[in-house]
Amino acid sequence: MRLLQERIRKDGRVLPGDVLKVDSFLNHQLDVPFLCELGKEFHRLFSDCGITKLLTVEASGIGLACLTAQYFGVPVVFAKKSKSKNLSDSVFSSSVESYTHGNTNTVIVSKQYLSPDDTVLIIDDFLATGSALKGLLDICRQAGAAVAGCGIAVEKVYQGGGEELRAECRVESLARILSMSVENGIEFFGD
Amino acid sequence: MRLLQERIRKDGRVLPGDVLKVDSFLNHQLDVPFLCELGKEFHRLFSDCGITKLLTVEASGIGLACLTAQYFGVPVVFAKKSKSKNLSDSVFSSSVESYTHGNTNTVIVSKQYLSPDDTVLIIDDFLATGSALKGLLDICRQAGAAVAGCGIAVEKVYQGGGEELRAECRVESLARILSMSVENGIEFFGD
Repeated sequence: MRLLQERIRKDGRVLPGDVLKVDSFLNHQLDVPFLCELGKEFHRLFSDCGITKLLTVEASGIGLACLTAQYFGVPVVFAKKSKSKNLSDSVFSSSVESYTHGNTNTVIVSKQYLSPDDTVLIIDDFLATGSALKGLLDICRQAGAAVAGCGIAVEKVYQGGGEELRAECRVESLARILSMSVENGIEFFGD
Repeated sequence: MRLLQERIRKDGRVLPGDVLKVDSFLNHQLDVPFLCELGKEFHRLFSDCGITKLLTVEASGIGLACLTAQYFGVPVVFAKKSKSKNLSDSVFSSSVESYTHGNTNTVIVSKQYLSPDDTVLIIDDFLATGSALKGLLDICRQAGAAVAGCGIAVEKVYQGGGEELRAECRVESLARILSMSVENGIEFFGD
């Protein structure tokens, strides 16, 4: 999506340690009208899939998921990060490694909010190793819910998570980064 | 707001330990068209205040803030919970006690995203002791930003945070709970 690539080039900053800072519009300050444009694009891509629910994980996916959900007219469910090891049996849970923070979280979704009647679109701001998304896919599997696909804002293609995920479900990333460095900037798929 | 009171009566559950479960529509599963109605009400209440930014804290305020921000046409900034005690000097920070989790978090906002040019509307799903909101007010003060007020979905009046906050700024809560118990249900202000 040209709009997102241009915005990343304009406002994103590549930092040492393979960090892309897009917190001026995507994951700290949220440019709401801009995120609505991304939401419309996800709707265009998945409008014929019979989506009943959008699923994301706290925190930075929630804004994008809510703004996207408006175009589908469906609820959002966000998976919570749980510190507790004693989980109630009223939740689906899965383990997620955080590449950014170097730790493992358990993410949980109440069994009340996903069922075999659901067709889910998973939404997130970033896809790198794909660990968070695999956790959400695992939760959908436990719930018996169908997954129409994943709608991602920014994919770091070179981290390989996208390739693994595409073996399991449809993945639509609005900006796909092929390489990135402080010296040479960002190269997008389709440049 | 009649609409929210009716929804809480219909779908909320009062649990032992002073817990109001509204996770079917407000803070786990999010009823997006319904939250848009709350957002329109916040806009009606604060439309003449020259709001430049909405401020909330992760995670459960983000959806409501984003859907509300659309009517104002302004960005959302969400404060992040930080585990690190070594904070960079590029952030404003404040301590927040969590009534629900019985611990203290540091919440941070990058200095890039709040300034004396801003007039802020603080948005959150719940107001109980007011600790999170006081932390956000503190951050606005550090930034030199003006605060037009707080827009809250559900206030537990009997926990006293609202009274304290109103000494500092305008607070508009869309449903105000005067008392609540498993036996007797919920009594709202204005019932």
